[in-house]
Formats: sequence, structure tokens, C-alpha cells
Amino acid sequence: MDIQHPYLMFLGDAPDRLAAKTAQGVADWRPEWCLGQFRMAGCNADLQLPDMTMEQAAEAGLKTVIVGVANRGGVISEAWIEVLVQALELGMDIASGLHSRLSEVPALQEAAERHGRSLFDVRHPRENFSVASGKKRSGKRVLAVGTDCSVGKMYTTLAMEKEMRARGWNADFRATGQTGIFIAGSGVSIDAVVADFISGSVESISPENDPDHWDLIEGQGSLFHASFAGVSLGLLHGAQADALILCHEPTRTHMRGLPEYQLPSLEDCMAANLAAAHLTNPDSKFVGIAVNTFHMAPDAAENYLKETEDRLGLPAVDPVRNGVGRIVDQLN
Amino acid sequence: MDIQHPYLMFLGDAPDRLAAKTAQGVADWRPEWCLGQFRMAGCNADLQLPDMTMEQAAEAGLKTVIVGVANRGGVISEAWIEVLVQALELGMDIASGLHSRLSEVPALQEAAERHGRSLFDVRHPRENFSVASGKKRSGKRVLAVGTDCSVGKMYTTLAMEKEMRARGWNADFRATGQTGIFIAGSGVSIDAVVADFISGSVESISPENDPDHWDLIEGQGSLFHASFAGVSLGLLHGAQADALILCHEPTRTHMRGLPEYQLPSLEDCMAANLAAAHLTNPDSKFVGIAVNTFHMAPDAAENYLKETEDRLGLPAVDPVRNGVGRIVDQLN
Repeated sequence: MDIQHPYLMFLGDAPDRLAAKTAQGVADWRPEWCLGQFRMAGCNADLQLPDMTMEQAAEAGLKTVIVGVANRGGVISEAWIEVLVQALELGMDIASGLHSRLSEVPALQEAAERHGRSLFDVRHPRENFSVASGKKRSGKRVLAVGTDCSVGKMYTTLAMEKEMRARGWNADFRATGQTGIFIAGSGVSIDAVVADFISGSVESISPENDPDHWDLIEGQGSLFHASFAGVSLGLLHGAQADALILCHEPTRTHMRGLPEYQLPSLEDCMAANLAAAHLTNPDSKFVGIAVNTFHMAPDAAENYLKETEDRLGLPAVDPVRNGVGRIVDQLN
Repeated sequence: MDIQHPYLMFLGDAPDRLAAKTAQGVADWRPEWCLGQFRMAGCNADLQLPDMTMEQAAEAGLKTVIVGVANRGGVISEAWIEVLVQALELGMDIASGLHSRLSEVPALQEAAERHGRSLFDVRHPRENFSVASGKKRSGKRVLAVGTDCSVGKMYTTLAMEKEMRARGWNADFRATGQTGIFIAGSGVSIDAVVADFISGSVESISPENDPDHWDLIEGQGSLFHASFAGVSLGLLHGAQADALILCHEPTRTHMRGLPEYQLPSLEDCMAANLAAAHLTNPDSKFVGIAVNTFHMAPDAAENYLKETEDRLGLPAVDPVRNGVGRIVDQLN
């Protein structure tokens, strides 16, 4: 799967900003790829990109329409189909992060075939992955792991990629979730892979590379999440990360979606991840803590970071407030 | 998925005994369900069951044809289709453990629809599972975990079920792999479930039950297997086992399929499983060690079991040589 850019960001009739969260993430991290937005009547989201018709987008050389909106039930709205067919007719591909598949809408499937275009349903991997070999691969790898889901793992690895590239390093973000896939142009929705191939799919998106190349692998879930830990463990084993970053959100009162489950301590979380990581890379180590302090007052955030750093002996930063430079400094 | 019994064991043109290994497992553990076998020209396997034609099987009230043979590539042989269609016409269902699907053979799919029969492709779960809730369920649960794949986890849990039932306990084997599913008549091929639903699928096959009921949950893989550990962890979390049994094969020189990976020590394997199990059941504990000593001389096996038992302070048995009574004695 290789999604061609530049992108036209399709916001459809998104009722609010939150419904266009995925599109916003892509526009934030790949502004050079996101050259226009398409909005329909009733759309209340705005990425501050030039509004374009499908004709204008095709004329401007845009290659792919990114359906980066959330919908009740994750379905493809009837109201969108006519313009999406038009996009295919004009020579653009379509990529969607919705649960329901573009390829299961007959009008879209037919138009794609007729015009030789591609439909990418990024939540539904269609590759046939191999079972993981566990063999060491050349190149270097960072993986973000978390105390919980949605604590900033994607943001952290993208910030690392940006910082490394700014320093002239050879670095690529490797996506394991839908927003990340739009940002990378490729990747795998690892939670949608068949269980036997979790680690194998990670080996495939982070293949052998130059000795000085860094893969920044997007983490998913948590070893301490009772619903999804299997995904996180398979990802950890497949990544064979040289460097781990622990991501955390200090104000969360329980594991996401599981009111009966407390978050682990940072120490327990690091110990469990390190023990498991050593199976496929005995040299794996933590190099920093990335804390999402969005819900904390500046003073409280600063104190929390300082206390964490002193206690764990590793740089503790909020990637948004402080950047990740001090974590990148740990690598070589 | 509920596969109706009694079964007609379909051996097709299996070239040797090994090709009918799945069928043999079902016949060993459910002799009361396996009332006949169907063999074609060239078949060199024999379950020592009455040979039946499809007509005889249907007349005898057999409900399901079990395709329990291995094949190069796991495909449905052209040579089988005519008789399998006949089975459907005669009112029997078909269940297969092959990789390729019965439901993708047009002649079988059409015949099944025409006659209102079911095709079960047990390697390909078709249920929509929920994400695991992590909520405590009533009833009691045993899970077999292993140092590696294929070290006797299914055998051990089936032997536990047999022993418990002989004692008049309320006990059910819960299948997580294809042979187990034929033996239980239901279950889920957990390695074929979409990654997000590993733990949820285990919650679904081992639901709430009477307080004195025991589920004997078939284990899969190993937390120390670099290809499949994610499956094992999701299974461990979903099972919420009260009692764990460690399964091991002492003569194995490396992890199955991974020549570069050594087996963990029993101590390390128990510690890792226990730590992970405690996330969803803080009272989980090991109650015994099941050792496959098939490749050891009787003296060596006996010494190994005694040494292991003394070292770990838990009953260590070979379920085949010694039975599992001493492990069941640990439960209440």
C-alpha cells in the first residue's frame, strides 16, 4: 500500500471539528502534502486549506482524496458517493479510514475499476503478511509504548521524526494506525491484522535499512490494557526496538474504556515492556518519557516532569510544550 | 458456531497416518461422537472406525462430516467435492480445518444453500467478537500456558476435563484451535481472530458460569515465542484463569520455527505468565507442571519430573504417562 500525494482532504459534511480529527492530524504533520480541502453543505470543520472542487483538485495535480472524517457508525454517507465517483473519474485515488469499506460500495468499486484507480481502506489490511521471523534487521528503531491507549504515542514518534530530520538524520515514521498511515503514506492498521501476523506485519513495515537509519515506530495500546495488550506485545516483539519511549497522561483516572482498571506505575510499565522487548532485542532500553500534560496547569506540569526525570533518571518532556530534542540527544 | 454430532470422520485420500492427525485427535477424545470414517482410494490412514458410505452415515443419523485431514497447501481436493456434495444432499453438515474454505467452493456453497445445511470453516472465525471488557466472570477457569508452541497444552486441558468429569465435577474444555474445536463442537481459532478481539473472543467462549463450574481453556503459543506471543498474551488476559498449568517439552533445542531462539527456563516462563495474568485476575496462580516426556527414556523422564517438582514445589506430571489427577487435586 502506497498512497500517492499530494492530498485533497475530504471533510464531507463533518458536523464539527472533532469529526475531522484524523484530517486535522494529517494536515498538521504533512502540510506540504495537504494542498486543499473539500467541504459539503453542513460541514462545520475547517482545516484552513484552500477549498477546492474535484475538478480544481485534479487540475492542481492532487493525487488522492483522503476521507479523514469520523461518522456515526463509521459508514460512508450516501451523500458523498457522487463526488467520490467524480474524483475517480478525474483520475484521483481515494483513501478512507472509516470502518465500512470504500471497496464495498458498488458505485465506487465500479468507477475505480473503470478508471484504473485505487481505493485504500486503511483500517483493513489487504496484504498477506508472513509470520514473524524474529531475525535481527539492520538499521535502528525507536518504539513508543504507553501506560494506556491514546496517551500521545503517535505524536511523540512524529515529533521524533521531525526533530531527527531537522538534524539531518536519516529517519522515517512507521505507521501502525489509520491517521499515521495517511501521514506516512503507507503502514498497517495493526489492530486489524489477523492475530498470528501481528509481529510479522511490524517486521514488514520496518524492514532492514542502512545502519544509520532510524525507524520511528508508532506504538499502539498498552501491555496493561486488558482489551488490547496482545496487540501491544506483538508490536513490541516485531519492532525489535533499540530505543523505547514511555508515553503517559498523568490525569487519567482509569484505563481507557475500562473503569475498573487503574493505570500502572511508570516503573511497572517500563519493567514489563523492557522484559518483553528483550526477547527480540536484548539491547533494548528506555531513552525518555513523553508526558501529555495538556490537562495540567503549567506549574504542575513542570513539577511533574522534573519529579519524573529525577526519579527515573531519563529525560521527561511534554513533546508539545518542550519538544523532544532532549530525548533525541540520548540516541546516536 | 455449534457443530452437531455424531461425526463421520472424512479421511479422503490421506496418504499416511500423520495426514489424519486432526481426525485421530478427535477420535481419541470424543470416541462417543466419532461413529464412522470415510476413506477414498489411496487412503492410508485408519481410525479403526467402521467404514461408511455417505448413505450409510446419513442413515445411521450422523450429523456432520469432519474434514480432519492435512493436505499439501491446506486445500480442498477436487476429488473430494462430489462426495461432500452428496453428504450435504443427504442432510449432513460439513466442518473443515483446512486453510482454504469450504464456503469458497461454489459447488459446496450452492449445495449447502439448496439443502439448508451448514459449512463450518473452523480456521476462519465468522463471529463478530466484542472488545474484551476485562470484567470478572463467575465460574472458575484453568488455562494451559507453555514454554513453546506444541508442547501439549491441548492434551493437558482435555486430560483435566476427563479427570474432573470422572470425579463428577462440572467441567468443560474450551477450544482455541482447530482440532480442539472439533473435539468441543465449538470454540474459536484464536490465531485467526482480528488482533483487536483476541481477548474478547476468549471472554466469549468462556462466559459466566455456575460458581462451581470449571472451564479448561486450551492454550496457544507462548509468551516467549517471537512470532506468536501477542496471541498468547491476549488469551491469558481474556481467560482470567484462576489456575495456570505450565506445559513443557524438555528435549526441544530451540523455539518451534525459530532456530535462533532458546526456550525460557520454567521459572522465567512462570514469572512472566503470572505477572501478565494478574492484570485481569490478581488471584491467578500456577497449580502444576505438565511435561511431555515422549522423547525421554522412562528413567530420565522420572528424574526430570521429580527434580522439577522439588525445585518448583508443584506437582509435575506427564499427562500421558501419569495422568493429571495430582494437578486436579490442587483445585477446589
